[in-house]
Amino acid sequence: MVPRIGVFDSGFGGLTVLRALLERIPHACYSFLGDTARLPYGSKSRRTIAHYAAEGAQFLVEEQGAEYLVIACNTASALALDAIQEAVPAPVLGVIEPGAAAAKAASKTGDVLVIATDATVQSHAYAAACRAKGLRALEKACPLLVPLVEEGWTTHPVTAQVIGVYLEELRAQAREEGMRWDTLVLGCTHYPLLRPLLEQAVTPGVQVIDSAQATADAAVKLFGQEHAENEPDTAEVRCFATDSVDKFERLGSRFLGRPTGKVELVDLGG
Amino acid sequence: MVPRIGVFDSGFGGLTVLRALLERIPHACYSFLGDTARLPYGSKSRRTIAHYAAEGAQFLVEEQGAEYLVIACNTASALALDAIQEAVPAPVLGVIEPGAAAAKAASKTGDVLVIATDATVQSHAYAAACRAKGLRALEKACPLLVPLVEEGWTTHPVTAQVIGVYLEELRAQAREEGMRWDTLVLGCTHYPLLRPLLEQAVTPGVQVIDSAQATADAAVKLFGQEHAENEPDTAEVRCFATDSVDKFERLGSRFLGRPTGKVELVDLGG
Repeated sequence: MVPRIGVFDSGFGGLTVLRALLERIPHACYSFLGDTARLPYGSKSRRTIAHYAAEGAQFLVEEQGAEYLVIACNTASALALDAIQEAVPAPVLGVIEPGAAAAKAASKTGDVLVIATDATVQSHAYAAACRAKGLRALEKACPLLVPLVEEGWTTHPVTAQVIGVYLEELRAQAREEGMRWDTLVLGCTHYPLLRPLLEQAVTPGVQVIDSAQATADAAVKLFGQEHAENEPDTAEVRCFATDSVDKFERLGSRFLGRPTGKVELVDLGG
Repeated sequence: MVPRIGVFDSGFGGLTVLRALLERIPHACYSFLGDTARLPYGSKSRRTIAHYAAEGAQFLVEEQGAEYLVIACNTASALALDAIQEAVPAPVLGVIEPGAAAAKAASKTGDVLVIATDATVQSHAYAAACRAKGLRALEKACPLLVPLVEEGWTTHPVTAQVIGVYLEELRAQAREEGMRWDTLVLGCTHYPLLRPLLEQAVTPGVQVIDSAQATADAAVKLFGQEHAENEPDTAEVRCFATDSVDKFERLGSRFLGRPTGKVELVDLGG
């Protein structure tokens, strides 16, 4: 049986989650929806985000036949996972809980750092998910990293410097709070593209947790796809966006690691 | 008579235009509205932008009593100036025409470069305004500059490097097209905060045109305030936003050059 998996994001950053899913469940049929007409979600209220994300989830389940749903968007995962689960009959997985679970498995000291966008940090969703697992988490907003990735500067010396500045600030704050951190969580779907630079920038021995991969690992279990990794890569991928198809098509392939194909425009009506 | 001037933007970057207005017309009563709930305008259709901007203009004129209106937003100036002028009885001034006029006055060679956001460049509004004045304009999107300004890195070495990279690309393109440029237009309301770094980065003799100042100069004439510069600074400033008052209050004072005061939340209903 070919599983049908829907992946939802406010933009196209969640394609890094789809990329990780393709590695772990390579024979599935995927529909990805980016609600590009209504981004950024980060500055909107919980009620509005829940309304938008539920509409997106319903499109994926009702119109695309998704049996499983991955919310590849930190803001929607933080603020609207329950509302999405109520809106559709399919099992729903967000990106935050798997990221926190992977941090729990990786950390020996119990002290972890999380880097994310301003909106995700302000929601304190990672700190709460980590706390629930007995971890102490320090969160830091890194607003320049998303624009640097979207500019394509993923290996640029300027990006390495920006990462250096952010990590130095984070280290200073961790010292102040007496944290002995050994794990860095990438709490934004754009950051996997910066993983090489980030791994160079952290102290040797620090583990870098990629929420996208952690989410794919969790999806394998939740969706009962434990043996899928050995299947041949017969994946079908269809990408949908509510606006701005240009930018999606121009940048999306770099996030997905393969061509996105033609991105289809959909109108969610909202 | 104290003139009542309304200033509209999709966000708070237009506060640099208000700052320039305060220098030239220091005794006026100003209302500034940032439509922060509905930004970014740059990714929306012309019709939607015209609808939003007209609502903002009506708020400033009908509810705040503005007799003159400045559209301190490049996207709205490029795409919706006519629609705004139709929606309100007050004289309306955008930022693009004054920027192009100042470039015309400054350039001896007739070749100018314009840096702006991706959305403004894609509208080619500056190129069209420059062409209408007999200038040849090369436009370049500099997507990292707005996030760098909002991060507060206006004098940071990283920002100087980013500017260096963008200007080098622009110089190479200008050479290819055989342009002998002597003027650089700052086509984004965030960029005046980078003026010192930009002036260091251009070849000596190149004139840097700040659209905000050019707009204030044009406002003096259009609004009949030629002698206002000598008035005492008795300006009153009220700031309104449709959402995200936090970020506005946190960053706005740096753009305005004086405290924004408490930012009042308004609901435009859209």
